[in-house]
Amino acid sequence: MLTGQPGAVGTAPDLVGIVVFAISGAPMAIRRDFDIVGIVMLAVATALGGGIIRDLVLGDTPPVAFARWDYLLVPLVAAAVAFVAHPELQRLSLTLLVFDAAGLGLFCVVGTVKALEHGLSPLSAAILGVITAVGGGVLRDVLARETPALVRPDSELYAVPAVVGAGIVVALWELGAYSTALGLAAAAAIFAVRCLALRHHWRGPRAWRRVGAA
Amino acid sequence: MLTGQPGAVGTAPDLVGIVVFAISGAPMAIRRDFDIVGIVMLAVATALGGGIIRDLVLGDTPPVAFARWDYLLVPLVAAAVAFVAHPELQRLSLTLLVFDAAGLGLFCVVGTVKALEHGLSPLSAAILGVITAVGGGVLRDVLARETPALVRPDSELYAVPAVVGAGIVVALWELGAYSTALGLAAAAAIFAVRCLALRHHWRGPRAWRRVGAA
Amino acid sequence: MLTGQPGAVGTAPDLVGIVVFAISGAPMAIRRDFDIVGIVMLAVATALGGGIIRDLVLGDTPPVAFARWDYLLVPLVAAAVAFVAHPELQRLSLTLLVFDAAGLGLFCVVGTVKALEHGLSPLSAAILGVITAVGGGVLRDVLARETPALVRPDSELYAVPAVVGAGIVVALWELGAYSTALGLAAAAAIFAVRCLALRHHWRGPRAWRRVGAA
Repeated sequence: MLTGQPGAVGTAPDLVGIVVFAISGAPMAIRRDFDIVGIVMLAVATALGGGIIRDLVLGDTPPVAFARWDYLLVPLVAAAVAFVAHPELQRLSLTLLVFDAAGLGLFCVVGTVKALEHGLSPLSAAILGVITAVGGGVLRDVLARETPALVRPDSELYAVPAVVGAGIVVALWELGAYSTALGLAAAAAIFAVRCLALRHHWRGPRAWRRVGAA
Repeated sequence: MLTGQPGAVGTAPDLVGIVVFAISGAPMAIRRDFDIVGIVMLAVATALGGGIIRDLVLGDTPPVAFARWDYLLVPLVAAAVAFVAHPELQRLSLTLLVFDAAGLGLFCVVGTVKALEHGLSPLSAAILGVITAVGGGVLRDVLARETPALVRPDSELYAVPAVVGAGIVVALWELGAYSTALGLAAAAAIFAVRCLALRHHWRGPRAWRRVGAA
Repeated sequence: MLTGQPGAVGTAPDLVGIVVFAISGAPMAIRRDFDIVGIVMLAVATALGGGIIRDLVLGDTPPVAFARWDYLLVPLVAAAVAFVAHPELQRLSLTLLVFDAAGLGLFCVVGTVKALEHGLSPLSAAILGVITAVGGGVLRDVLARETPALVRPDSELYAVPAVVGAGIVVALWELGAYSTALGLAAAAAIFAVRCLALRHHWRGPRAWRRVGAA
């Protein structure tokens, strides 16, 4: 997976990311009192939205999410689990945030590498990697009519670790030093920064409020 | 149309679906006090959004909606009609819901068959068919800043009949028994279930509220 | 740029449009108290959203916005400028509206011509040109959870000048009379009508309210 070409083994981390993202999408639908269709819609959008946007941009159609039936099955199962077990999931919300951080790291590295393999420039590849990682969550929030958690000043850093991780991957790639092991290390770094941000309530800066300015 | 390759005759049902979806999009714009641009935007998005998403996912570019000028003309005319005749349209709202149910059935079957012809797996094809049928309405609601009618618990079943119909189509296809006549029958089944849901106020289930659970 | 194939010189007007659109996207993020990630997201979406939608529809992947790294760099720099200098930008808001009108004209003509070069029919090309021009702003408003300025009845005409300009371009093209100079003239006409609409508070018509109608 970390080379962008899913193989028999390589898709495992990808599917792990899809599971945790799907599980993070379903509870919002339940909180907003959506019916079963809404639960499935948010689970699918959260889990697969980022990868679908990435593949449409790269012209890799149909997107992996539609080319492989297991990619669609996973969020369907996650939605069914959330439908029944949502009280248990709510009690596990901290655990889910940790899994979500793992998904963030994995999706970001996979997306960046796939973009580089398609010949995108380092800057474009890094941004597409970040979009891969955060796109599903933004799509979920737009569909549920929430202000995207990504941009709320009371949210802990989410995109910033992904930006840093994508930057590391493109730097390694340009130096010819990229390997799957180093890609996993970059994903782990994103995971670690995100978890630290959650623990210490690190927030993203807002626009400068200067004295005397309107 | 029901083989996914629009021919001289085959596009007629497709255009019927576009007409009713366009007409269902414009009144929301009028209720929300949008200007003429907003009326056109919601009519076009509702009528063509699902098909455009389907074609982008399948890599069939430009989407049929842009490759054929009549597909764009229809919602423009519908928006013009709604602009003038919206009081009459409001009095016909029950009739419009019936036409909308017909569009739901036709779009779902067309989308599923086109996805199967492009080699998608049965599960992927069924889901893309459902997205074709409901995508325009979701896009309309997102643009108009409404909670998608698709997921509101007080909405009658909308996606569920489409899921069932898409399942019938892929089962027939896998058995080698699919024909245009059976496709039309599946569309009619979707239409019938949707009309029954409207008549008897069938609702989609919400997440289980178990005794003693948070 | 006005032939749809960006060359060394030809991209200059394109980049001008991207700069002004990016700068128009960032202040909304600041007003809504988004953090730095939100400022960048709205700047990028506003500046590049319309062109990305155009290129996805035309099947020209990766979109120019991702194929050329400078297209992404421009909104990043604009977001950084807005992050620091937003009080000054707010004082320049009228100036920014004038620049935005220039971007509207340029994007509309570029989008229409590119669609014609890809073989779209005149109607489809004109509509895709308008989508290119207004798509970024709609995406910005959807992400920021605002009713799209495009459709609010208290907004001055925005899409209407673009529709007229796109119509002129396709008419010239069909007559075989299109040239870069005339394309620039059409962009200037869009710019002029938009500025007149701002100055005289021209509004788009809302649906007819007839006496005695519901």
